[in-house]
Amino acid sequence: MGVVSVGDELLAGAHPDLNGPYLAARMAEFGRRVERVIVVGDDEGHIADAVNALASTCGLVLVSGGLGPTLDDVTRHGVARSVGAPLMECPDAVEEIEGWFTRAGRVMLENNRRQALMPEGATRIPNAFGTAPGFRCEHPSGARVMTLPGPPRELQGVFGAEIEAWLSGNRPDALHRARASAAFVDLPESTFAEAAGAWLERGANPLVGVTVKDGILTTRAVATADAPDKAARMAQERIDGLVALFPERYLAERVDDLGAFVGGELRRLGVSFSLAESCTGGLVAASLTSAPGVSEVFGRSFVTYANEAKEVELGVPAEVLSEHGAVSEACARAMALGALERSGAELAVSVTGVAGPGGGSDEKPVGLVWFGIASRVPAGGEPQVDAEERRWPPLGRARVRRWAANRALAHLLRMARARGPQGAGESYPGGISPGSD
Amino acid sequence: MGVVSVGDELLAGAHPDLNGPYLAARMAEFGRRVERVIVVGDDEGHIADAVNALASTCGLVLVSGGLGPTLDDVTRHGVARSVGAPLMECPDAVEEIEGWFTRAGRVMLENNRRQALMPEGATRIPNAFGTAPGFRCEHPSGARVMTLPGPPRELQGVFGAEIEAWLSGNRPDALHRARASAAFVDLPESTFAEAAGAWLERGANPLVGVTVKDGILTTRAVATADAPDKAARMAQERIDGLVALFPERYLAERVDDLGAFVGGELRRLGVSFSLAESCTGGLVAASLTSAPGVSEVFGRSFVTYANEAKEVELGVPAEVLSEHGAVSEACARAMALGALERSGAELAVSVTGVAGPGGGSDEKPVGLVWFGIASRVPAGGEPQVDAEERRWPPLGRARVRRWAANRALAHLLRMARARGPQGAGESYPGGISPGSD
Repeated sequence: MGVVSVGDELLAGAHPDLNGPYLAARMAEFGRRVERVIVVGDDEGHIADAVNALASTCGLVLVSGGLGPTLDDVTRHGVARSVGAPLMECPDAVEEIEGWFTRAGRVMLENNRRQALMPEGATRIPNAFGTAPGFRCEHPSGARVMTLPGPPRELQGVFGAEIEAWLSGNRPDALHRARASAAFVDLPESTFAEAAGAWLERGANPLVGVTVKDGILTTRAVATADAPDKAARMAQERIDGLVALFPERYLAERVDDLGAFVGGELRRLGVSFSLAESCTGGLVAASLTSAPGVSEVFGRSFVTYANEAKEVELGVPAEVLSEHGAVSEACARAMALGALERSGAELAVSVTGVAGPGGGSDEKPVGLVWFGIASRVPAGGEPQVDAEERRWPPLGRARVRRWAANRALAHLLRMARARGPQGAGESYPGGISPGSD
Repeated sequence: MGVVSVGDELLAGAHPDLNGPYLAARMAEFGRRVERVIVVGDDEGHIADAVNALASTCGLVLVSGGLGPTLDDVTRHGVARSVGAPLMECPDAVEEIEGWFTRAGRVMLENNRRQALMPEGATRIPNAFGTAPGFRCEHPSGARVMTLPGPPRELQGVFGAEIEAWLSGNRPDALHRARASAAFVDLPESTFAEAAGAWLERGANPLVGVTVKDGILTTRAVATADAPDKAARMAQERIDGLVALFPERYLAERVDDLGAFVGGELRRLGVSFSLAESCTGGLVAASLTSAPGVSEVFGRSFVTYANEAKEVELGVPAEVLSEHGAVSEACARAMALGALERSGAELAVSVTGVAGPGGGSDEKPVGLVWFGIASRVPAGGEPQVDAEERRWPPLGRARVRRWAANRALAHLLRMARARGPQGAGESYPGGISPGSD
């Protein structure tokens, strides 16, 4: 099936089309695959061409947008031209629009009558969420054309109220589809692809896809089978097989925001933490505090850019800085220990590196980052400290910083999972700050 | 002309197509109108059909996405099928990809060789921003087809490096076009549109467009005239007129990243600064340290989430917290003063608020944020402190935090500009940290 999204603003740069992906995702839940979304401006000819192009190969065409009351809204005209029927005023639609204005305590304007126009023979699709009713009609090709309002709130409301029931009663085939997914951290797409091999082939069932965004690799499997439980089992088995390739990098079924996820996990596990950031300059703290309620396990962190700040705020010995420099194993260890001590937290991670573009040397090139990982288990016991060196390619300051922050998040998650859930929070002096969360 | 955007993820709901609107907006600057954007999944046949459909009516077709190394990336195959040419390995492309891996200190994987495939007779379009070179070829219809990488950062980089010059040299008509732009902070689109009035009409020359992204409103004017200097003058005059409407919110001709811009301005003006962040949790520091070289004026900042941390790290009096709470004018002032004192900087901004979703009350609802603004001019003189309250609509934790961080950045910029350039840096004890920047 196909979707036509209409609106000059969708071709102006600032407003991506949200209705096409929304409808594609929702349709997939009903076993219908959207093969193409065509985005056109408010132009009668372009709208008619797009509907014709889709109707020639698809049994169902959804059109959204351009149903407003102003003269530049011409979707009704474009669809009417495509199906070869004149526009007529629909009395039920006039009544619906008048009712909408009455309920809103306003009087219907004359130009809102335009919104009651639809191709002769079309059936109104009521819109309880705005002044623009939709309509369904048949294309000469036999395709069914459904025209819906453009504002996403209205479109989604009408979809739920009017389209879902029709879809449930009109499945396109006897097959059932199910999906499953898994999200990973610290896993490059090429490494994943190499390990997954033929499972990623386009003809495979389950069909497996991969997307990488903001440090998270997400893989999705869609299985097709003759029974719903069989499809669900196939999809989940494929995902389980993929998770088994990289168990230690697995996050969860689905993760939208790495910082919020790790912050949420730290909170759920009751592991209090702090940070000492140099080259990431607050990025790790900002990522983790995007998790609501994280104040239960997070009291403070330190952005220590200058050497003097590392000494004063974190107690890094002056000799460490003069002998090894700020980007060194010794400094990373001292920073993490300092954050652990000052915060009273159970876990502290430090980040110190050369983000670039300046500041690199042969010995310490741009992309070199040291991490310190300090912990105290049980709380009050002797601190343990570990360190890790990473060398990233010098692909720009923003990327080196983001990679370093993501790696720090992965360290926190790993340490907290290894420690396991504890009844922390209550006993943690730095946490629970009413208001600031 | 037409655009084909390729990617299963674009039909999966979460990721709207950003390349189509970007290319449509940029093409308009060169006098070329994008009439249709067709979004298809990673399917060879659908890609070929979409290219064929556009090539039959358009002289120029841009294709983006699906050039990755994995088996589900089949855009090369789809375009090759459309233009009727076999895929061949392009030696220059192999070399380009190998070079990319070498610079990144890695070894090219075998599946990256796929990225060097292009239709016989095609010309490579170099990509300095990732591993996927693009290519241009001719469709049997005579249309020119340009295939570009999908990640927006890469697409926009390649567009600027490779496509703009071609467009400038291949104008579709005898007219000349020139562009000018201006970026603003803290300016809602509706306020701007109200003030700009008829200048924003779609038929106007210069044609004025507006985009809002990450706290920056950017307006662009494209003027069309029969001589290049006349077009340039018209575009610049219109932009000057728009800047004159909001002079105090004007940033620069173009700003991509608000934090990096403000950090760069603070460095340029030689104003040392620090931060005390509660609800933004490090977001302001992370934004500012995205500016290279900012260590010259930035030594440290404080993320004080817990009340106890505000007391210990910033010296906020316990009575302020018990009487007024953490989200209060008194606390914001004390936090800013504390950061000023502890850091020895000339300027310090604090942020304390209710980001939500929990933690709100009738008196202090979600969206309430207090800012403290402390300064010391001249350095070593008496500190001055000011405060501001803002109430944002409770549209989600991420947005409230981002708005608050952007507002803090605007305060820093305003204060630093009011202070003017100084010979700071040398005398600032906290700054200049070799390695950490």
